Amino acid sequence: MSETKPVILKIGGSVITDKNGDLAAKTEVINRLAEEVAKANIKNLIVVHGGGSFGHPTAQKHGIKEGFKHDGQKLGFAETHHVMTVLNGLVMDAFVWHEIPAVSVTPSSCVITENGRIKQFEDAALRMLLKMGFTPVLYGDVTLDEKLGFTVLSGDQLVAHLAMKFNACKIVMAVDTDGLYDVDPKTGKNAKLYQHFSLAQLQTLKLGTSLAKDVTGGMSGKISELLPAVEKGIPVSIVNGAKTNRVYRALAGEKVEGTLIEKA
Amino acid sequence: MSETKPVILKIGGSVITDKNGDLAAKTEVINRLAEEVAKANIKNLIVVHGGGSFGHPTAQKHGIKEGFKHDGQKLGFAETHHVMTVLNGLVMDAFVWHEIPAVSVTPSSCVITENGRIKQFEDAALRMLLKMGFTPVLYGDVTLDEKLGFTVLSGDQLVAHLAMKFNACKIVMAVDTDGLYDVDPKTGKNAKLYQHFSLAQLQTLKLGTSLAKDVTGGMSGKISELLPAVEKGIPVSIVNGAKTNRVYRALAGEKVEGTLIEKA
Repeated sequence: MSETKPVILKIGGSVITDKNGDLAAKTEVINRLAEEVAKANIKNLIVVHGGGSFGHPTAQKHGIKEGFKHDGQKLGFAETHHVMTVLNGLVMDAFVWHEIPAVSVTPSSCVITENGRIKQFEDAALRMLLKMGFTPVLYGDVTLDEKLGFTVLSGDQLVAHLAMKFNACKIVMAVDTDGLYDVDPKTGKNAKLYQHFSLAQLQTLKLGTSLAKDVTGGMSGKISELLPAVEKGIPVSIVNGAKTNRVYRALAGEKVEGTLIEKA
Repeated sequence: MSETKPVILKIGGSVITDKNGDLAAKTEVINRLAEEVAKANIKNLIVVHGGGSFGHPTAQKHGIKEGFKHDGQKLGFAETHHVMTVLNGLVMDAFVWHEIPAVSVTPSSCVITENGRIKQFEDAALRMLLKMGFTPVLYGDVTLDEKLGFTVLSGDQLVAHLAMKFNACKIVMAVDTDGLYDVDPKTGKNAKLYQHFSLAQLQTLKLGTSLAKDVTGGMSGKISELLPAVEKGIPVSIVNGAKTNRVYRALAGEKVEGTLIEKA
């Protein structure tokens, strides 16, 4: 590992795909984000992206998250992984084109889960990539699971795991809203954006409950995954990846509209 | 691991790409081979494919095989891996389309080499895939290397490694000639095809020398990689992947034109 603590950038599936489409990538957004990542020029960066309309509908159709029930699902597992590599390929294409030394690391090739939680992460290659100054790119993927046979591993769980493992200096979450709201801004009127959110505030929410779901504007699951990283003192900056330069500013440490979650 | 010993199929880069082109995939050949693999219906199959006009020119341009010399190569390493994932994506697309439960396993995500030889293969996911009856698909790739920084890992080295690791029952090598010739059939007149080749015959050749290069019709490096597997008693069937049904027949254990290399 190089001396500087890594920055972890999560690019939400809803930012780079059209969730209402089928395998519908927003290639212009992918291209702009690659440009912003290149411009920020972070030496020690790990990128994780979500599945959006690539991984999710395919995994759902075959019940992959719920685990192995019958042989007929195996093709669905294969297909879900394949479509995720297609989306990842579009991201890698844009990154390499923008001269980012980005190398994809395939979660299903090196992570084993147990009941959906990361149990074993064989990370020799990932560590060497970081040490040499590459930008590893991971993504939400299917995994083999010691209890379920197989399941789905979310990009958010990967982000929290990597942040803890490599003692990240910060996490930037690019989502499709301006940050964390008191009610879902897509449905609720007068939703209020939190500019700052503390660990104490987070802990008063019963994450995972419908209250928490409301209070975090539908981002309860995401926030719940990141809680241990925040507890460890890693700040999380939630910004709108659909709006130009928000990701760049968050990466570069400039003032940016969004929600900053910090321990204190 | 499931009880039956696996069959390992290597699909040469020269079979599925046009080596004279640039990123020129032979999608019709890929599609036909997927059909043959599906028809053979091998329960315990591992597939490895080469890089052809995807991996090789890119790796060569940036001197990736020779190892890390300067920062400028890093983008070349990223690009070489990326183009290999593009070729792999075309293979996976055809396999999944033909209802093979095929899952790509990314060598650069789980293999570390030392001076170009496999040093560490983190194979927990690969083992679980095999155990569950999936068809893992690997490919020639770049790798991080403990001595060289990075290098290139050939599909042939992967084949031999996997055959030994999983005690394969046979190896099928799909190449772009009818098998092993006494002289290169592409340049030499009256080249004679060996139908059978024994370990003793192989050992009399000084593999890697120009004599061996002649005697194996330009396939010296390939044969040299496979020697330890043959010594272990794993038969190697070399067939022409460019000709219809040769791969199918070799997989199904039917009589097929080609060269069979056996210990005795």
